Amino acid sequence: MTEFRSINAATGEAHGDPIAISTPADVAAACEAAAAAFDTYRATDRETRAAFLERIAEEILAIGEPLIEAYTAESGLPRARGEGERGRTVGQLRLFADVVRKGQWQQIRIDPAMPDRAPLPRPDLRLRMIAVGPVAVFGASNFPLAFSTAGGDTASALAAGCPVVVKGHPAHPITGSLIAAAITKAVRDAGLPEGVFQHLVGPSNELGAALVQDPRIMAVGFTGSRAGGLALVKLAQAREVPIPVYAEMSSINPVVLLPEALKARGEALGAAFVGSLTMGAGQFCTNPGLILAVEGDGLDAFVSAASAGVSGAKRQTMLTTGIASAYAKGVQTLSALPGVEKLAEGELGSTTCGGAVLFQTTAEKFLADKAMGDEVFGASSVIVRCKDEGELLAVLEGLEGQLTATLHMDDADEGTASRLLPVLERKVGRILANGWPTGVEVSHAMVHGGPFPSTSDPRTTSVGSLAIDRFLRPVSYQNLAQGLLPAELRDDAFGDGAPRLIDGKLTLN
Amino acid sequence: MTEFRSINAATGEAHGDPIAISTPADVAAACEAAAAAFDTYRATDRETRAAFLERIAEEILAIGEPLIEAYTAESGLPRARGEGERGRTVGQLRLFADVVRKGQWQQIRIDPAMPDRAPLPRPDLRLRMIAVGPVAVFGASNFPLAFSTAGGDTASALAAGCPVVVKGHPAHPITGSLIAAAITKAVRDAGLPEGVFQHLVGPSNELGAALVQDPRIMAVGFTGSRAGGLALVKLAQAREVPIPVYAEMSSINPVVLLPEALKARGEALGAAFVGSLTMGAGQFCTNPGLILAVEGDGLDAFVSAASAGVSGAKRQTMLTTGIASAYAKGVQTLSALPGVEKLAEGELGSTTCGGAVLFQTTAEKFLADKAMGDEVFGASSVIVRCKDEGELLAVLEGLEGQLTATLHMDDADEGTASRLLPVLERKVGRILANGWPTGVEVSHAMVHGGPFPSTSDPRTTSVGSLAIDRFLRPVSYQNLAQGLLPAELRDDAFGDGAPRLIDGKLTLN
Repeated sequence: MTEFRSINAATGEAHGDPIAISTPADVAAACEAAAAAFDTYRATDRETRAAFLERIAEEILAIGEPLIEAYTAESGLPRARGEGERGRTVGQLRLFADVVRKGQWQQIRIDPAMPDRAPLPRPDLRLRMIAVGPVAVFGASNFPLAFSTAGGDTASALAAGCPVVVKGHPAHPITGSLIAAAITKAVRDAGLPEGVFQHLVGPSNELGAALVQDPRIMAVGFTGSRAGGLALVKLAQAREVPIPVYAEMSSINPVVLLPEALKARGEALGAAFVGSLTMGAGQFCTNPGLILAVEGDGLDAFVSAASAGVSGAKRQTMLTTGIASAYAKGVQTLSALPGVEKLAEGELGSTTCGGAVLFQTTAEKFLADKAMGDEVFGASSVIVRCKDEGELLAVLEGLEGQLTATLHMDDADEGTASRLLPVLERKVGRILANGWPTGVEVSHAMVHGGPFPSTSDPRTTSVGSLAIDRFLRPVSYQNLAQGLLPAELRDDAFGDGAPRLIDGKLTLN
Repeated sequence: MTEFRSINAATGEAHGDPIAISTPADVAAACEAAAAAFDTYRATDRETRAAFLERIAEEILAIGEPLIEAYTAESGLPRARGEGERGRTVGQLRLFADVVRKGQWQQIRIDPAMPDRAPLPRPDLRLRMIAVGPVAVFGASNFPLAFSTAGGDTASALAAGCPVVVKGHPAHPITGSLIAAAITKAVRDAGLPEGVFQHLVGPSNELGAALVQDPRIMAVGFTGSRAGGLALVKLAQAREVPIPVYAEMSSINPVVLLPEALKARGEALGAAFVGSLTMGAGQFCTNPGLILAVEGDGLDAFVSAASAGVSGAKRQTMLTTGIASAYAKGVQTLSALPGVEKLAEGELGSTTCGGAVLFQTTAEKFLADKAMGDEVFGASSVIVRCKDEGELLAVLEGLEGQLTATLHMDDADEGTASRLLPVLERKVGRILANGWPTGVEVSHAMVHGGPFPSTSDPRTTSVGSLAIDRFLRPVSYQNLAQGLLPAELRDDAFGDGAPRLIDGKLTLN
């Protein structure tokens, strides 16, 4: 097979021209070009690199209507979502441009020489972060723009000074190609080497495997299934030179309904929950797949409202027929577990659509069967009824690592919440109160990450400006002449706007 | 076997009382206590934690003469080195106390809410770093104080808020026990839970393996051989929840002698090189095991002086008989490689001692045989003679990841140096000019780390204040009430001296 075709998500039919599948030779050529471009690209000054990121944003906007058309056809997601996601993608690139300009990511540290120190003089030491090398980015099916070709992984890797080789997701090859062309134009217009950005496409896992195994690739960004992420981690660890894989994989995002909040607004919470559960056919990494609460009237009101909402939910087109069928299978598996009760079901799914489903169980049963905590990617959720706070805590302690945890609470719940927080901090990357985990802000204080297996590396985030740190490593320069130091470490660079830690004291520029 | 004994490095004889070997039950109990202490310890405020680190330093100094006696007997290293290393260990703890107090490690980020933003309001987001969990630290044979029980890994993990379980190195159990008692006293005097610090000892690899495999351990610090480090990495990756291993493993630390410097002072460089090579019997991670230079009169002068220095070098007691015999074997293997010529040899080694050896080869032969680049832990080094700068660059490009690279240069060598620097940045963690890589400053701008296989994780350092980052992960708090936020993220904590990134803008307190 040398070509494949894009599939319309709603119809399941092929559309558009045949697309050439990238070959092993293409992978090798792309990695070679990326490695060749690395020293040039990482040496660009902050302004050049920031302007380049902004240029990519402009080129993406310049695609106009064809991008939204390809997006909606390939993903089955509505136009408003496509426009919103384009805004997020462009905003993300501009955020990283701002981050690059401000220069804090360089983590400049200077320990001045102490020639007279006894018994030994101290040398002049200067530290900066440098890019790790060419990065492989895997497009995500559920964010054809914001987490694919020009998504968060690409933006943060380019911001760090790493050339990027994208393996586009085969569920949206036309969207991916349009974006890739926009980036390629920005690369050329900026006068950068072509190896700074390259795009590979194809439906096979072998393509991605070859990319991760190429010795010139130095880090990997991935958002997708746990099986996919773990497979890449395994390949990366088996290399002669192992490399980090930042895989954002799976999460059921526990939502804890605290007693006073439930009492005050159990019904309203139930309705709001269904909104978060069914948004985008439930195809979010932060979809609320687990509801925890202590038995009581408030919980009954919540269950009743949530059940009504789910029962009335229309089925929605899923990203691919493969995802729709995996969702149906996941729901089937969950239904079949002893101790799991189906509370409500909306319009039934189809080969291309997924319908909403709501289950319930007890804490005792949930604790006894790990399978109830497996992610079902789509609009399915499980309510776990706890006898008391002790059981609630036990369920939280027993959970795998998660991206988020949510507390719905009133002021009078603060005591309970403060007892849950230390556990939640150990289990998740983001804790939120009185909101829903779907809707991930792209900003400086966001963490979209969390303990294994929600990600393969809990020391970081894949959304927000902190994501740049994934693609950097420190280098220290000892007693180098001013003329040999990187520009930002020279004495005459002081005052360039980047913060510096000088002899342990932070200065703003 | 339930007990083992300390061995005097110089005599190879057992001395002191029998020492109980930690059992698998001890490992489990230590990890259980560490996990139980975690939430309490990580919640200590900056002042409490800093004062605790300073208290450990005081308790170590209070041991006095018995510590130096144990150190010299167990390591074979001289008293002055022991006193210097104690100073470094204490200084390191005080450095981390200062780092903890200043609070930059918390990486506080606050994105204030924008309730009126359209189309969607922005939530209040606040980020901080929290400790990853209990950390396993492996004592290093070659730094019985500065990289063992209370060494850099322990100091940085405790600074981060992680309880520590040390697996003491069996080559210095008495030194380790004295230090462990000092830390334990500091833990008690500070009123902290006993699980904050624990010490296990024993000669078997199984002990360390059990520690890394315990599900309560969340990160590992290790300094030692490549085989040892890779074995721990493998165990850590095979866990149900994989964890990071920070293993500092092996490096031959290339030293490049540039033409003008060689011309000006080839002979003096040769003598100085032997000083660095033979210091501490060559048992440093940053020992200069590889010399690179272009053919010429200067190189001949260097070779002649270095050969004379090595020929006159006395053998020195090595850390253990095992290390002495591995060194002898490594030298033997290197000698036997076709194309490697023995230039000079000092006093011959023994079962407890190692003698200095100097080899040379050509770039062409070095490039043809990877085995010439293998680390020989001890006072052995290889001079690689290059025909021209192109060959020199090819040798550097072909090297594995290293901790350091050194340039000896004059002003007139700057052009050559600037062509080598991009390659060196990709290969090493620290680049130094006109010095020797041995002697690692413990400060803010130090990087003691580097690309694989010099370490298992090039994104960090094991020496210096940046080492604290290894044991931290970010957590984001969204719309939490002030009373539920961690103290440092509350509005009323502003001005507490810790820097904050507010809406992307860095403020000093």
